[in-house]
Amino acid sequence: MVSTYTQPLARLIEAFQTLPGIGPKSAQRLAFHMLKQSSHDIKNFSDALLDAKEKIGECAQCFNLSGQSPCELCANPNRSPKTIGVVIDAQDLFALERTGEFSGQYHVLHGLISPMEGIGPEDLKIRELLARLTTDSEGRNRVEEVILALPPSIEGDTTSLYLSKLIKPLGIKLTRIAFGLPVGGDLEYADNMTIARALDGRQEF
Amino acid sequence: MVSTYTQPLARLIEAFQTLPGIGPKSAQRLAFHMLKQSSHDIKNFSDALLDAKEKIGECAQCFNLSGQSPCELCANPNRSPKTIGVVIDAQDLFALERTGEFSGQYHVLHGLISPMEGIGPEDLKIRELLARLTTDSEGRNRVEEVILALPPSIEGDTTSLYLSKLIKPLGIKLTRIAFGLPVGGDLEYADNMTIARALDGRQEF
Repeated sequence: MVSTYTQPLARLIEAFQTLPGIGPKSAQRLAFHMLKQSSHDIKNFSDALLDAKEKIGECAQCFNLSGQSPCELCANPNRSPKTIGVVIDAQDLFALERTGEFSGQYHVLHGLISPMEGIGPEDLKIRELLARLTTDSEGRNRVEEVILALPPSIEGDTTSLYLSKLIKPLGIKLTRIAFGLPVGGDLEYADNMTIARALDGRQEF
Repeated sequence: MVSTYTQPLARLIEAFQTLPGIGPKSAQRLAFHMLKQSSHDIKNFSDALLDAKEKIGECAQCFNLSGQSPCELCANPNRSPKTIGVVIDAQDLFALERTGEFSGQYHVLHGLISPMEGIGPEDLKIRELLARLTTDSEGRNRVEEVILALPPSIEGDTTSLYLSKLIKPLGIKLTRIAFGLPVGGDLEYADNMTIARALDGRQEF
C-alpha cells in the first residue's frame, strides 16, 4: 500500500507506523500533516526527538528519567526524603506525580520480577533501593516509610512480597497502595479480581 | 501537567501533542516509546521527517505531492493521459490510487471553492487543469474524459458545477463519481442526505 507513495513520503509514513497505536491510516494522516508544517516546525520536532534522546538519562539516586542527576524530584528540597514511593517505571512515577498527592521521593525499579520473562531481582534497581534505606549521605537512615506503588498483578504481587522480605527486617514502615473499585466504578461491571481485592482491602467504616 | 516532566521530555511530549488526533496521554506514550528506541532509530525517524519536507514538492503537471516532477504517476507510460481524475488533495489521490481501479492521470485542485472560507477558483489549480485540457506537449488535446472525484458536500458540489461550466464547452466528456449507500451500509442507519443521493443516482436495473 505504501509503495504507491513517492519515496520520501513512503519512508515518513513507515516511520510513523513504527509508533505504538499508530496504524497505516493514522500514519498516513500524520505524514500529510507534517508535510503541511513549515520547515521551522519540522526542524523543531526533529530537534525535540534528538534532544530528548541525547539529554535524558537516569537519575543516579532514584533512576527516574531526567535531563539532570540527581533529578528534579530528588534535588527538590521541598520533597521529603523520609518517604519513598516505589514504582515500576518513569511513566508510573509521572502518573503518581500528576495527582499532586505525594510529596516524598521516588525509586524506579525499571520493571517487575517475572520468572516467565526471565526477569529476576538482580535485573531491577532493588540493590540500589536497599542502599538508600540503610544509609544516607550523612551515614544515617532518614527513610521512615516505603510505599509500594506496584500494580495488582502476579508480577506486582511477587515483587511486593520480595521487597517486603528485605525491607521489613530494617524496621522501616512498609505500605502498598490500595486496590479496589475505581472511583465512579460500578460493582456490576467490575471484574471478579477487582471485587475480590476490594473485599480483601475493606476498612472499618 | 507536562511541567512535572524533565525539560527535554516535556518538549518532546509537547511536540507530539501538536499532531492531529494525539492528546496528552498518547503524546506521553509516544514520547516514552521514543526514549526507549536506539539513537540510530531516532536519527532515522528524524531524518525521515526532514527528508520528506525537503524533497517533496508539487508535480508541475498534476500538482500531486512528489519527490520528483513530473511525479511518478504522470511519468508512468502505462497510465493513460486520456482520462484525468480530479481530486481535492494528495490524500484523496492516494485513496483512489489504493483501489487500483483507476489507470488514468490525476489533477490535484488543492482545495474546493468555499465562499465561507474565502477560497475562490483562482486559489485552486483550476487554470492549470484547463491548460491540460486544451493543449498537450504536442499541441493536441489528448484528454477524452475528466472524472470529478470530489466529495458530496456544498463545496464539492459548487466546485463540480463550476468546473462543469468550464469543461463541457470544450467537448470533453465530464463525469462525477457516484454517491450513495456505502458497501455493507444499511438503509436504516444511513443519513437522509446519503439516501437522497442514492435515490437521485439510481440506475436502470
